[in-house]
This record gives sequence, C-alpha cells and structure tokens, in this order.
Amino acid sequence: MGRDRLDQQLRFMVELDRLKLVVRHTRLADGSRLENDAEHSWHMAVYAAWMMEYAIEKVDVLRAVKMCLIHDVVEIDAGDAYAYDAAANEGKTERERKAAERIFHLLPEDQYLEMRSLWEDFEEMKSPEARFAAALDRLQSVLNNYHAGGSIWKEHCIKESQIRSRIEPVRGIAPILWEYLEEVVADGVSRGWIAAA
Amino acid sequence: MGRDRLDQQLRFMVELDRLKLVVRHTRLADGSRLENDAEHSWHMAVYAAWMMEYAIEKVDVLRAVKMCLIHDVVEIDAGDAYAYDAAANEGKTERERKAAERIFHLLPEDQYLEMRSLWEDFEEMKSPEARFAAALDRLQSVLNNYHAGGSIWKEHCIKESQIRSRIEPVRGIAPILWEYLEEVVADGVSRGWIAAA
Repeated sequence: MGRDRLDQQLRFMVELDRLKLVVRHTRLADGSRLENDAEHSWHMAVYAAWMMEYAIEKVDVLRAVKMCLIHDVVEIDAGDAYAYDAAANEGKTERERKAAERIFHLLPEDQYLEMRSLWEDFEEMKSPEARFAAALDRLQSVLNNYHAGGSIWKEHCIKESQIRSRIEPVRGIAPILWEYLEEVVADGVSRGWIAAA
Repeated sequence: MGRDRLDQQLRFMVELDRLKLVVRHTRLADGSRLENDAEHSWHMAVYAAWMMEYAIEKVDVLRAVKMCLIHDVVEIDAGDAYAYDAAANEGKTERERKAAERIFHLLPEDQYLEMRSLWEDFEEMKSPEARFAAALDRLQSVLNNYHAGGSIWKEHCIKESQIRSRIEPVRGIAPILWEYLEEVVADGVSRGWIAAA
C-alpha cells in the first residue's frame, strides 16, 4: 500500500465532512432544528444494522449499512431536493451523476468502483439492500417529522396522498414497517399536521 | 415478531435522535462550527467501512462499523467529556454505565445484549474491532481539527505531548495511520497550533 493510496482515501474522508453542512427538509425529532445529511445517514445506518428482520428479501447487512452511509454523499455538490418539490427535482439526476463522478473519484480506483456501484444501486433500487435502504430512508424521515410535531408537513402544505405515495414502495419491501407508517400518517392527518387530500 | 418488539425498536431509534444534539470538542473540517456526536459517528463508520486495510489484526468489518455507529450513544445522557480534560472525565465511567443501562434497555433483550456488549468491548478495547474503532476515533478527530486550522487545540492550549499520548495506541493497531497522524501533529506544532511541550 503506497502513501498515494492513503492520501487519496483521507482526502475523500475529509471532503465527506461537507455532508454535515447539507441541510434536509426533515427536523430533528425534538423539532429544534433541521437535520443534516450526515446525521440522517448515521441514523439510517443504525436502522439498517438493527432492523433487518423486517425486510422480506434476504439482505446483506454490511452492504445495506455501507449503502446507507454513502447514499446522500452526492448532495455535497447537488444539494438536497425535497422529495415533494417537483421543480427542485428537475435535473437532479444529471447533477447527482456529476457529483458522484467528482466525489467518489477522489478515492483509489477499486474503492471508487465499489462506492459508485453502491450509490447507483441505491438510486435505481436494484438490489434487496437498495430496496431496504429506500424503505428506511422513508421510515426515518417520516418518524422524525412526526415526532417533531409535523411542522415540516404543515409548512409545506403536504397532502396525505403525497406522503402515502412516497411510502407506498415500503409495502412490498417491509410490510410491517409500511403498516406502521400508514398508522403514523393516519395519525398525522387526524392531528391536522397533514392535509387530508 | 410482535408489535411490542417493533415499538421498542422504534422508541430506541427515535431516542437516538438526541445524539445529534451532543456537541463535541471537535470542529467541522471547514471550521464553521463544532461537530456533534451523530455526525462524528457517521464519519467514523465511513472510515471503518473503507479503511480496514490499515488494521494489522483481522477485523470483522460489519462488527466494527456497528461499533462506530453506537460507540457514543451513552453521551446522550452522560455528555461528551473532552479527552484532554481530566476533571470532566472524573465519574465518567459510572455516568456512562448508567446511560448504557437506560438507553440500550429501550431495545428488545437480544438487541440490548448485543449493543451493550459492542459498547463495552469498545470501551475496554477488547477485540480487534474495538481497537480499530479506537484508532479511527482518534484519526477522525485529529484530521478534522487539523483541517479546521487547529482552533480547538489553540483554544484549549493543548500540548504536543498530550496529543502524542492520545494517538500512541494507534501505533500498535494501524501503524501506517499512526505515522500519518504523527506527521499531522508535527505540522500542527510547526504552525503554532499545538504547544511544543
């Protein structure tokens, strides 16, 4: 192992620090502030490491955890596009592809290939790990916004139908988690946090 | 799987959110603010997932990553004691033991036992995974503070001998990373960020 390789790896690790500055459209569970991508990725990775029993497909836990850890890294360059904001999502694929090219390429070639393939898999929901990570992405965000009193949903006038369609993929990936999410959404509607429509 | 089990797991996951509010004595690499424990745990987990080649012992990567993800959870109750502050570290063991008991016990018994044992292993540096995680804990913190211009070290009048003794365990765990850290510290001293003593 040469020193070049270590330099590349550590340059990447330090560059990753910027993910802590990318603010999401999700609040901390106590409602005190918005969450950032690094915190969200950590939280999702913990879910992945300890809630795998709810996936109906067989999942490689290490692969799923690694995917959760890096699934949002492209947002260092591309920013966080709110899931319910169609305009913000326009051109997102191309922005994120460029970001992946720049950021993952800081790594040595073998690790670039691995990380890029993990990220593409996540984006396209190709593998059981990617599908489970997608389910946890939704679960973590909805639970946080629910515990924060739904202020993000109120602020953006989010409709029940929008959230239900966002969590719909969870049904086939982790049905027990989907049922739980459905109850959470129903409760959010009954509290007036989510517009019934 | 009963609903009780899922309720316990999700209560734990939501409680974990508070780790995002525990502020550390490390700055973001751009120096803009202090880092929190959730961000630090995420960063360390990424290091663990992609820098295992530097460990001289054989390491179970999934176990090391899981350990990194939860190694600071007890600080939700016990707070972050600065590594170089002897007074803040007094009574820390007992405070953290109580915190582990309360927080990990939110989980179902089997997961409580696993997580508690991961955390105790980390604390006591018993396994190869725990030793590698300890090395990465030091690497991540030193690199962040270095890239942030050493302001934390200056502010707390940290001495070269203190940092050298803090990174000393890395020498036997991941010698290449230790050499790198030694160079970083020497550079910090030459820049006047760390007191030569």
